[in-house]
Amino acid sequence: MSGSTVRVRPATGRPHRVLVVGGGFGGLYAARRLSRDARVQLTLVDRRNFHLFQPLLYQVATGALSPGEIAQPLRSIFRKRLNTTVLLGEAVSLDPDRRQVGMSDGGPIAYDTLIVATGVRHSYFGHDEWAANAPGLKSIDDATEIRRRILIAFEAAEREADPIRRTEWMTFVVVGGGPTGAELAGALGEIARDTLKRDFRSIDPTHARIVLVEAMDRVLPPYPKGRSASARRQLERLGVTVRTSTKVVGVDDRSVHLEVDGVEERLPARTILWAAGVQASTFARVVAEATGAETDRAGRIVVGPDLTIPGHPEIFVVGDVAAQSWPGHDRPVPGVAQGAIQGGTYVANTILGRLTAGGGEPRPFRYFNRGEVAIIGRLSGVTDIPWLGPFGRQGGFIAWLLWLGIHLTYLIGFGNRVVVITRWAWSFLTHGRSSRLITGQPLLPPIQEPEPPATRAVHPEIDPNRPTP
Amino acid sequence: MSGSTVRVRPATGRPHRVLVVGGGFGGLYAARRLSRDARVQLTLVDRRNFHLFQPLLYQVATGALSPGEIAQPLRSIFRKRLNTTVLLGEAVSLDPDRRQVGMSDGGPIAYDTLIVATGVRHSYFGHDEWAANAPGLKSIDDATEIRRRILIAFEAAEREADPIRRTEWMTFVVVGGGPTGAELAGALGEIARDTLKRDFRSIDPTHARIVLVEAMDRVLPPYPKGRSASARRQLERLGVTVRTSTKVVGVDDRSVHLEVDGVEERLPARTILWAAGVQASTFARVVAEATGAETDRAGRIVVGPDLTIPGHPEIFVVGDVAAQSWPGHDRPVPGVAQGAIQGGTYVANTILGRLTAGGGEPRPFRYFNRGEVAIIGRLSGVTDIPWLGPFGRQGGFIAWLLWLGIHLTYLIGFGNRVVVITRWAWSFLTHGRSSRLITGQPLLPPIQEPEPPATRAVHPEIDPNRPTP
Repeated sequence: MSGSTVRVRPATGRPHRVLVVGGGFGGLYAARRLSRDARVQLTLVDRRNFHLFQPLLYQVATGALSPGEIAQPLRSIFRKRLNTTVLLGEAVSLDPDRRQVGMSDGGPIAYDTLIVATGVRHSYFGHDEWAANAPGLKSIDDATEIRRRILIAFEAAEREADPIRRTEWMTFVVVGGGPTGAELAGALGEIARDTLKRDFRSIDPTHARIVLVEAMDRVLPPYPKGRSASARRQLERLGVTVRTSTKVVGVDDRSVHLEVDGVEERLPARTILWAAGVQASTFARVVAEATGAETDRAGRIVVGPDLTIPGHPEIFVVGDVAAQSWPGHDRPVPGVAQGAIQGGTYVANTILGRLTAGGGEPRPFRYFNRGEVAIIGRLSGVTDIPWLGPFGRQGGFIAWLLWLGIHLTYLIGFGNRVVVITRWAWSFLTHGRSSRLITGQPLLPPIQEPEPPATRAVHPEIDPNRPTP
Repeated sequence: MSGSTVRVRPATGRPHRVLVVGGGFGGLYAARRLSRDARVQLTLVDRRNFHLFQPLLYQVATGALSPGEIAQPLRSIFRKRLNTTVLLGEAVSLDPDRRQVGMSDGGPIAYDTLIVATGVRHSYFGHDEWAANAPGLKSIDDATEIRRRILIAFEAAEREADPIRRTEWMTFVVVGGGPTGAELAGALGEIARDTLKRDFRSIDPTHARIVLVEAMDRVLPPYPKGRSASARRQLERLGVTVRTSTKVVGVDDRSVHLEVDGVEERLPARTILWAAGVQASTFARVVAEATGAETDRAGRIVVGPDLTIPGHPEIFVVGDVAAQSWPGHDRPVPGVAQGAIQGGTYVANTILGRLTAGGGEPRPFRYFNRGEVAIIGRLSGVTDIPWLGPFGRQGGFIAWLLWLGIHLTYLIGFGNRVVVITRWAWSFLTHGRSSRLITGQPLLPPIQEPEPPATRAVHPEIDPNRPTP
């Protein structure tokens, strides 16, 4: 191992070229650390021109925040770091021998050290045909699309006279009971029970049916059992129907097909949101094929204890796209922001250590679980913070407060932080969600049965066909 | 006339059905007033589910604000007004005899009084084929598309090696020197000179060329000549090239074709923004055809002094979609927010007056020009406020302050107001624009010449083909 470590040290006095692919948490934290060191010449490549604060993405999808409030342009983060070049582009190939990454739209980029931080995307477990009817939540565009579907569903229910079809529009299914699914279902519960309560005239949004489907026997499977039970109670208090041990076996444009104890069941619903599975980004497969690296079932790259690909000490993999074993646990390091942040920082320090004369072998990466926090609607949530002992297992209001503090601390860009605090404070006081915009395709789908009454009964007590006086 | 006035009074004790088509300034202010009166049963129809504060739309297009910050859901504005129904939908036909408006997606809606407030859209003066290469700025989706084009242009210039093509990417043409065009050009000047100044490594954004093209002999034609001259000076100080008496005669994907004194000229530019002309919304033509109303050249409906269609005292037209004569002026009431707000309020009062026993004929609508204010970049702008006398003609900082106060006063939704103040304060202090997100299609157009160098020279001083040590 020490021979290869020497190999990545620069032989000359020229700066060490580091290429970071992906500007999520892992890539960003690695790049921020490296960009402060003049020995490094850094290139950061992303398909988007901004860093996205993904933990708050569900708040955009549910109209509480605006996209610009949880995103920060990468260029502005690195504007003062003159050793850093930000490039908008998509990495599509890797030549580990020539140490070059090929781009979809230009010549390849050479590196001395490569950091792969391309994250994950949704996985439909081999059923990609479900994607059209059950969008997932990974990008800003996903979030505005989900927001559009949720709002359109209430609009469609408002004008639908047929009670069965109205119920279909007012049924929302969230597939996947992990943190994203639970937070999404909680937010939907709040929208129906609180935000939209008085907005409609024909429907009562509080009658909306929100169903959270989870294949395992409890929600928030990474949390201890007690926390899962608490989360379930809080969800049910918000009107969410929690269905555990329930598998999704089919999705179409009018319903989701479930399987419970081997028995199939059709649940009619017009809005189905996918928060169930992830798979590694496409670039992970490219990297695995080019380097011969192992991947796990979700396509994540299996890395060594120093987060490099075995046999390639110059290629690091961080964040969700890496499958890192977590000593002492029966699961790998979870695919959450803190795992990526810690990985990114570790990798940056390892690279800088290699550039320092006499810098020894790095200690293996050790994930420190600072704890997990999810909020479920207004004023409530669950935490699991192991290092705080029993105090680390909170529910309700304290969990909610902790969540607030943690998310604001990590939100990049002070301006965004102030804006988000303002929005949250305002929403909290007014029970409102002011970013409830239907953008893109604004109109409702055409009414299905072509036999509407001669006149729409906007105010049922008035007969619109009565001759005007 | 008095006979027809009697005709629109309800013969029975049932509520008077008012249908408002369009939730812009005209429709919103009429509806807000009417929704406070129990004698009225109000339906507000819009194709979008939100009211858009259009005067700040250019700030979304230039990344200073996020879409949700200048829009307010219509349902939440009217949630407490139980006499009001908000419907998402598009009005497509009118039967003035049966007093019904047909919708694209359902049965017609009956009314006793109709308020048409559907606004205007861009006009390419018969050249709709220009639209693809020169988007206009009327909707949230327009704004995010323009934002995408502006940001992509700088990204493309950054990676473009050919100096001629790079100059094309760094040339921005704004067609139309009215308030929107001037504000857009000023904001572009600020982005190039200030916001992006240090963001790139290969290009210098301050070298961007911003050209404002106006067919008339001065910018801001509705303002007095002195104000136009002041605006021009301020634009030029921001690096904007102002070309007056210049007509656009062609637009393609690489250039705009100009005509000056009968001589044609091709100006290569990859980003062309349209702020030149407007025409009445499609529904205006429907209304004109159904009622026999006159329209002006831009398709706006010519209304009587009480803003009704002659012969149809039960149909009002307000805002930009109406062509209202402005006694004592050689131009009609301008198509600005205050014209629509005053029209909407006037119409609501007229309708309520008719419902009041003994309410006489309404006085004719009199537009009161509160003044016009445009800002041009940071800390500067022009005003024309006739009723303030000489003090009403300000330039520079005082104009900018006035603009700030006026726009915040009219921004609907207190929450939005606080968020917008925060964003502005933050941008002002940091010279930043944090909503610089490229959403939708994120990637650059493919590089045109298929002969890039073997390796992209990210850092020109490093030869990427040098064998790694």
